[in-house]
Amino acid sequence: MNQTLKGFRDFNPEIMSIRSEAISRVRKIFKKYGFEELQTPALEYQEVLLGKYGEEAEKLMYLFDDPGGRAVGMKYDLTVPLARYIAQNQNTPMPFKRFQIQPVWRADKPQKGRYREFYQCDIDTVGSASPLSDAEILAIISEVLDSAFGFSKFTIKINSRPVLFAAMKNANIKKGQYNTVIQSIDKLDKKSKDEVSEELLQKGLVKKQVTAVFKAIEKAQPDAYLKQVIKYAKNMGVKNLEFTPTLARGLDYYTGPIFETVVDKPRVGSVTGGGRYDKLLGELGGPDLPAVGTTIGLDRAVDVITELKLWENLQIGTRVLVTIFNQELFDKSLRVANTLRTAGINTAIYPNPETDLKKQLKYADKKKIPFVVVIGPNEAKSDQIQLKDMSTGNQETLDIQGIVAKLS
Amino acid sequence: MNQTLKGFRDFNPEIMSIRSEAISRVRKIFKKYGFEELQTPALEYQEVLLGKYGEEAEKLMYLFDDPGGRAVGMKYDLTVPLARYIAQNQNTPMPFKRFQIQPVWRADKPQKGRYREFYQCDIDTVGSASPLSDAEILAIISEVLDSAFGFSKFTIKINSRPVLFAAMKNANIKKGQYNTVIQSIDKLDKKSKDEVSEELLQKGLVKKQVTAVFKAIEKAQPDAYLKQVIKYAKNMGVKNLEFTPTLARGLDYYTGPIFETVVDKPRVGSVTGGGRYDKLLGELGGPDLPAVGTTIGLDRAVDVITELKLWENLQIGTRVLVTIFNQELFDKSLRVANTLRTAGINTAIYPNPETDLKKQLKYADKKKIPFVVVIGPNEAKSDQIQLKDMSTGNQETLDIQGIVAKLS
Repeated sequence: MNQTLKGFRDFNPEIMSIRSEAISRVRKIFKKYGFEELQTPALEYQEVLLGKYGEEAEKLMYLFDDPGGRAVGMKYDLTVPLARYIAQNQNTPMPFKRFQIQPVWRADKPQKGRYREFYQCDIDTVGSASPLSDAEILAIISEVLDSAFGFSKFTIKINSRPVLFAAMKNANIKKGQYNTVIQSIDKLDKKSKDEVSEELLQKGLVKKQVTAVFKAIEKAQPDAYLKQVIKYAKNMGVKNLEFTPTLARGLDYYTGPIFETVVDKPRVGSVTGGGRYDKLLGELGGPDLPAVGTTIGLDRAVDVITELKLWENLQIGTRVLVTIFNQELFDKSLRVANTLRTAGINTAIYPNPETDLKKQLKYADKKKIPFVVVIGPNEAKSDQIQLKDMSTGNQETLDIQGIVAKLS
Repeated sequence: MNQTLKGFRDFNPEIMSIRSEAISRVRKIFKKYGFEELQTPALEYQEVLLGKYGEEAEKLMYLFDDPGGRAVGMKYDLTVPLARYIAQNQNTPMPFKRFQIQPVWRADKPQKGRYREFYQCDIDTVGSASPLSDAEILAIISEVLDSAFGFSKFTIKINSRPVLFAAMKNANIKKGQYNTVIQSIDKLDKKSKDEVSEELLQKGLVKKQVTAVFKAIEKAQPDAYLKQVIKYAKNMGVKNLEFTPTLARGLDYYTGPIFETVVDKPRVGSVTGGGRYDKLLGELGGPDLPAVGTTIGLDRAVDVITELKLWENLQIGTRVLVTIFNQELFDKSLRVANTLRTAGINTAIYPNPETDLKKQLKYADKKKIPFVVVIGPNEAKSDQIQLKDMSTGNQETLDIQGIVAKLS
């Protein structure tokens, strides 16, 4: 038995090089906006995890007794541990601007794009009710998608729960029906107006009410708070921000603005999703503090980067393989490898002088290393180096400075 | 109940900023030497984990049935998952130069410096029997401790199992006693010669044998393979490499060179440890391939960096807090924050214009943010900005270019 568990993945070197670069770029932007990193353990007491997410969620949790007999569980998201952290560290200065990039575990039915172990990347400001904090989250989303990931076509949709409620009120919907009507409206990005209309009729609305709902949503405008958020966001250079009155998202806990990001191509669903949740931390057993934040879907982002080949020309993996012609020329090759590494070029050296050159080249090919260096007896005599471009097959003979310049 | 489990830690922002910087520097060096990152899941089938580490170890494992009734366990180290990965991916090109930085779990008795969840940072070359591969690991250790961490005083001790065995043979020790004698010799860095001598007598050696052992160890010299490793290592610029014939390390699975690193100050034990293990992967259920590598003790390294204040002047956290004088001057402050961020300076802005300035300064102080920017009505009129150095209390008035220059 040498297998990963169903729903669990190895991240192999090819995928990891993109994931790790993506995380490091995201982290850099988070820090530029004054956010700080937090990491919490994989395991928590069951008392921390249970009674927070509802029964359905609890069925998916990895719960067990540890070797000391304590009832423990693997973390299910990053928000409950955040609430627990703040409760445990009462003297945390507020606002607390934290980000957290860690795996969570859910024993969900595995399917394409859904895993039992996956990374969440959450960024939140806790303890600020200012619209500037909402705008900062939008600025970060925009900069992450634009400059960190290199997405050219994306839209940040924004709406707010109070705006949705006002529209319901304008359409004379009963308060008890707000949520169910809004849930149907949320589907307008995937379903036609007729289909949504049919759904609303089935939910017990009369035709006149359905017409009123569509009209109210069409006429909906940002409220004062949302206007402030949008103004600050634009001042911070946020790109492609679009007021979208049909956007509803997970209605259960958001209290103010809500936002999500879609990319035009490829169709991977939303890449980010978040909003303001001023009551949630208290409900999760943490202190009663306002909060706003977003999650960034790293898996989806990496899928987009890979599919659109956005980072094809980046030097994030091994750049060059230095081959070894024979035992006598080993030291020559080693010196070249040293020089390339000192110049900051990611350099592998083939470790075995007995392996024939063809096999060494094949190794570079299999590892998708873009360049290969060969130093044979002739090159060694004249202090020259052969550089082979593996994608074109082109070869040129250069001195070491030439090689460094070419590969930098 | 809002507590972490015993033996589990939150990494708070202050510690995380050092940890995360340390990991990113280490990763950069690993990649420069042509190593690639691998990540494996937290959970493995129990069949993968059990029968590999011995009974004592298995008592410390987090083993349980998952919600689907599968017998699973949390990973105990990074070597068994590596063996499983290679067995599962038979077409992995060899040599496979991989590193892996992930948490592992052991339900050990928690004590100072020993946790139930801790990060391992392993780097190994699998599928190469060349001394160059051993030397590369030493070069990486040297560069990590020297340029990544900034340790000035460290020693990389090196020895090899065949050298130890030859010394045993020279001292006429019976083969069956090699391991127990070597285990005592290994203690010479902590115990006196007399104490070790006493221990050997208690183990059944006669005085003459003890004298012969000490003599053989003193006279021990690197064998041909180890000489090659040391030669290549020096060619790669390895610093502070010291042949140490008393070094033995975990004798159970090393087959060739062994090495570990100690720092002179503070006394934290070894910061790295590793060697060549040509039989282990096969024994762990992986393919029968030679391998060499090291583990880097991140926790201990971070302790040294913190205790010696090695990174005190690095700009790895939030560099400046931009305060908000009042609602009218909000936009001015926002513009300054934008400019600082565009210049790559980690900048927080206080989100609430109603909070008085004193409280905003106190926030910067608590968060240990080194600089604070104030833009009051006078400064706003003359396009000037006040910059306060929080460590000295000094204030100066500069224009925005001056501020950027000062903080970059």
